[in-house]
Amino acid sequence: TIQHIFKEIFKAGLELQEEDHSKALLVSRKKKPEDTIVDIKGEKIGDGQQRFIVGPCAVESYEQVAEVAAAAKKQGIKILRGGAFKPRTSPYDFQGLGVEGLQILKRVADEFDLAVISEIVTPAHIEEALDYIDVIQIGARNMQNFELLKAAGAVKKPVLLKRGLAATISEFINAAEYIMSQGNDQIILCERGIRTYETATRNTLDISAVPILKQETHLPVFVDVTHSTGRRDLLLPTAKAALAIGADGVMAEVHPDPSVALSDSAQQMAIPEFEKWLNELKPMVKVNA
Amino acid sequence: TIQHIFKEIFKAGLELQEEDHSKALLVSRKKKPEDTIVDIKGEKIGDGQQRFIVGPCAVESYEQVAEVAAAAKKQGIKILRGGAFKPRTSPYDFQGLGVEGLQILKRVADEFDLAVISEIVTPAHIEEALDYIDVIQIGARNMQNFELLKAAGAVKKPVLLKRGLAATISEFINAAEYIMSQGNDQIILCERGIRTYETATRNTLDISAVPILKQETHLPVFVDVTHSTGRRDLLLPTAKAALAIGADGVMAEVHPDPSVALSDSAQQMAIPEFEKWLNELKPMVKVNA
Amino acid sequence: TIQHIFKEIFKAGLELQEEDHSKALLVSRKKKPEDTIVDIKGEKIGDGQQRFIVGPCAVESYEQVAEVAAAAKKQGIKILRGGAFKPRTSPYDFQGLGVEGLQILKRVADEFDLAVISEIVTPAHIEEALDYIDVIQIGARNMQNFELLKAAGAVKKPVLLKRGLAATISEFINAAEYIMSQGNDQIILCERGIRTYETATRNTLDISAVPILKQETHLPVFVDVTHSTGRRDLLLPTAKAALAIGADGVMAEVHPDPSVALSDSAQQMAIPEFEKWLNELKPMVKVNA
Amino acid sequence: TIQHIFKEIFKAGLELQEEDHSKALLVSRKKKPEDTIVDIKGEKIGDGQQRFIVGPCAVESYEQVAEVAAAAKKQGIKILRGGAFKPRTSPYDFQGLGVEGLQILKRVADEFDLAVISEIVTPAHIEEALDYIDVIQIGARNMQNFELLKAAGAVKKPVLLKRGLAATISEFINAAEYIMSQGNDQIILCERGIRTYETATRNTLDISAVPILKQETHLPVFVDVTHSTGRRDLLLPTAKAALAIGADGVMAEVHPDPSVALSDSAQQMAIPEFEKWLNELKPMVKVNA
Repeated sequence: TIQHIFKEIFKAGLELQEEDHSKALLVSRKKKPEDTIVDIKGEKIGDGQQRFIVGPCAVESYEQVAEVAAAAKKQGIKILRGGAFKPRTSPYDFQGLGVEGLQILKRVADEFDLAVISEIVTPAHIEEALDYIDVIQIGARNMQNFELLKAAGAVKKPVLLKRGLAATISEFINAAEYIMSQGNDQIILCERGIRTYETATRNTLDISAVPILKQETHLPVFVDVTHSTGRRDLLLPTAKAALAIGADGVMAEVHPDPSVALSDSAQQMAIPEFEKWLNELKPMVKVNA
Repeated sequence: TIQHIFKEIFKAGLELQEEDHSKALLVSRKKKPEDTIVDIKGEKIGDGQQRFIVGPCAVESYEQVAEVAAAAKKQGIKILRGGAFKPRTSPYDFQGLGVEGLQILKRVADEFDLAVISEIVTPAHIEEALDYIDVIQIGARNMQNFELLKAAGAVKKPVLLKRGLAATISEFINAAEYIMSQGNDQIILCERGIRTYETATRNTLDISAVPILKQETHLPVFVDVTHSTGRRDLLLPTAKAALAIGADGVMAEVHPDPSVALSDSAQQMAIPEFEKWLNELKPMVKVNA
Repeated sequence: TIQHIFKEIFKAGLELQEEDHSKALLVSRKKKPEDTIVDIKGEKIGDGQQRFIVGPCAVESYEQVAEVAAAAKKQGIKILRGGAFKPRTSPYDFQGLGVEGLQILKRVADEFDLAVISEIVTPAHIEEALDYIDVIQIGARNMQNFELLKAAGAVKKPVLLKRGLAATISEFINAAEYIMSQGNDQIILCERGIRTYETATRNTLDISAVPILKQETHLPVFVDVTHSTGRRDLLLPTAKAALAIGADGVMAEVHPDPSVALSDSAQQMAIPEFEKWLNELKPMVKVNA
Repeated sequence: TIQHIFKEIFKAGLELQEEDHSKALLVSRKKKPEDTIVDIKGEKIGDGQQRFIVGPCAVESYEQVAEVAAAAKKQGIKILRGGAFKPRTSPYDFQGLGVEGLQILKRVADEFDLAVISEIVTPAHIEEALDYIDVIQIGARNMQNFELLKAAGAVKKPVLLKRGLAATISEFINAAEYIMSQGNDQIILCERGIRTYETATRNTLDISAVPILKQETHLPVFVDVTHSTGRRDLLLPTAKAALAIGADGVMAEVHPDPSVALSDSAQQMAIPEFEKWLNELKPMVKVNA
């Protein structure tokens, strides 16, 4: 019937439109079918092996970072995280050590031969950060800080981009496109939970986002289990889910003494907890052939 | 200081209150530390083994159900699902075959020696349903239909309770309590995704709910991967995540010919897809010792 | 160009499809352009005049209801609300007086010549309720209890249908269609806030839903300011917004002594507060010419 | 009883804690009970009079802005909006004219003796923007771009701060505190809808946020009806609600020819629509005595 033909045209139009749009994006798997490998000091993120990034929420002192670095290195972990510039809801909360924090990270990285990742919150800090860190993290609150994305896209340094507090997957992909459109394809996407009505967890880990992002883009995908849940007791089960669903890696916060941490004390693992956690995960980690 | 003592009292008060409340619930693990086993025709849900419940979204005909039953049985699956009373957003959508649907399920159950589960939507149908089905499903839209919960609690028949469209975990647990407070402890909780702003999936699978529910209650917990995602391409990765995080089982929709299904055609697996799906999951399924 | 023509066809198809669907609904303004008037004991809801429905959250005693009835009547209000069957999150919270509550409402209605509205939670109660109340309320938790909707649609009694906790406007309209498709067009829609991530209010009042519902359907629309906000200090400003945006009326909870109320004590107005509230609203109420 | 006394202490502790926190904030009404007046070229926002800010979504040309300016001025409006730096989801969407856009705004402002407001998206642009605009707008996506907030707080120029896409009211207030803690108290808060599951509107206008913000802070509060709803047909009813609930003003987008607008074409008013809209609102606008 006429009506049917009309509907078919309509459907074809819809598909055509959607296809066109995705095809246009540089981060899209339609544009580049093979996986992008992000090279961080020789660690090849996205090569099929599953990895861990751990470290304290905030850099507080050389001793604190070094202690976590030693524990991480002992476990074979190569990438350390630590916040120097902390975006905090209140201006009166601890704002991080700033450049001094980056210097501590650099010193620890050199001493332990680790790569370090730290959040940068404004374009003006990007240049200076290049001297100290191996990966620029762009945090959830800045996922649509487009000037920051463009600045991170204009330098030769891997970027870990966190999903916004309430960003759709489509917005997340477009944020990555802002970076890649400036010439930098060394991007790791990081699911870190989204804001919902549920209050049992700090955010709701959107685990389905992992296979969707892997399917829609050619970029590696991490899961930050600490910020997704905000609960120490959920770090192990959610990390298992992340590994099982095919994430390229898991990020978690580790602190020598969480009870006195200057931020996020309720959700960081102490070192013995971290070792137990990792040992329970190791049997299921995919190792590259 | 005085202020400190005061704060301690305050915190103690907070904990006391929360503890009191959880302690009071019959479904709480504080009330009963050991796992509840739900016995469905000899299948002991919650005994540590991970199981599957599959079947069509809606019962459409004897042939349709029998075909899925044969495929399920071949794979060693013991529990079949199928909707007879379908709660649909529009009154003009297919509403299910009603009692005739239950009769089809019963006939197939007998012929294939399977247990069957079907949704009941109103207290008046509970009695009649007892003759036909092995598990009463209470759907997401009825999670706070308290009269239905009470009616299901008053009979001797296992109940699979789905989380409401936008229910908190706490409300979900209280809904189970409505059932158990009437004397029926044979309850399976089923996470099936929650409503969020994200539109890439039909609902957002709240995978963290699984360990929280296992921790807070003594009841077995399933994950319905079909309704969580609404996408056939996500059934495999999300099922892996559900098994890895410790769910007692996974529920998914299977239809002999999804493209002509009277409901949810976009998200059901055809039989060969289902077999492939299950084969990929089997290596990671926990089998009871 | 060809592409343009194609896009035009596509757009036309989209509009056609949407139009078709809305046209089919009996509650749609496309089906019936003029406003439906719901006649409640002579009060003609939807006639352009803005009205109030007040009363306690739960019926607790004859004296309690009578006291509110007297205050309401003094202010010219003709419709009293009061819950007899209370759907509560926990089975251990006060569940309402049941039929005894309906009898109290009936007695007060007769003595004060008021109409009364009360929530019915299961189809089996509908018949009995007809003897006692003038309007059947279907609550948020039961907005997609389709058997209840159908039962309410099959009797000759006005229905006040509340929007579900996390229902879309489209689902809300379809729920009303379940009632009207059974023959009952005496339906008042009631916006009562939706579930969001915001915790400053109990729910988030979706004020835009009012003009959308007025535009899409021919049914009168009320706003329940008590459940939308859950805060006594917001009852006045939100009622002003509801009246200004064109609601047919406002519903609010009034209790002789809120501090001892058996439910919702934090959000009900005491009688003097209620009188002050109404006096501040009166100048802006639209009165029918 | 002991238990009761304990609970009372507990409650008191809770209140004390909350009170303490709010008291500390400079933007809090507890810190400064009287309303803050934001002086924009002599317009005293927050003085009790309700005002309008209108203009195109994006500055496209001198002619376009001048045409809207003429229409606004004719209606007695003193403040014009227009985007020069446009934060867009996709890097391939129109990004605004940048500094050229600010120059156009400045020229129009001078010719028509209007004040102009425009969004600034990164700290590095703040200094330059001071020469061209009268109010710095900080957009929803940058509500927690803390470096931008601090930069805006360090200059002597009024700031209009929009609520984040999914920001809580508490986070919104803290974002304002970032500005004020740097010395700038000339802040207008702007509710612009929040992200929810509802798709009938672009965002969900959280109208209750207006009285809460007025109560919690001493800052003036505007409502952006265009971005809240994303629907031209809702601009009038939502503006009525905003005025009725006590907003200090309403912001809306006006474009000489919305159908060819480079952004947001579906939601801007053409000039005759704008005049009709304003005429319907004028009778209810509160004018300062």
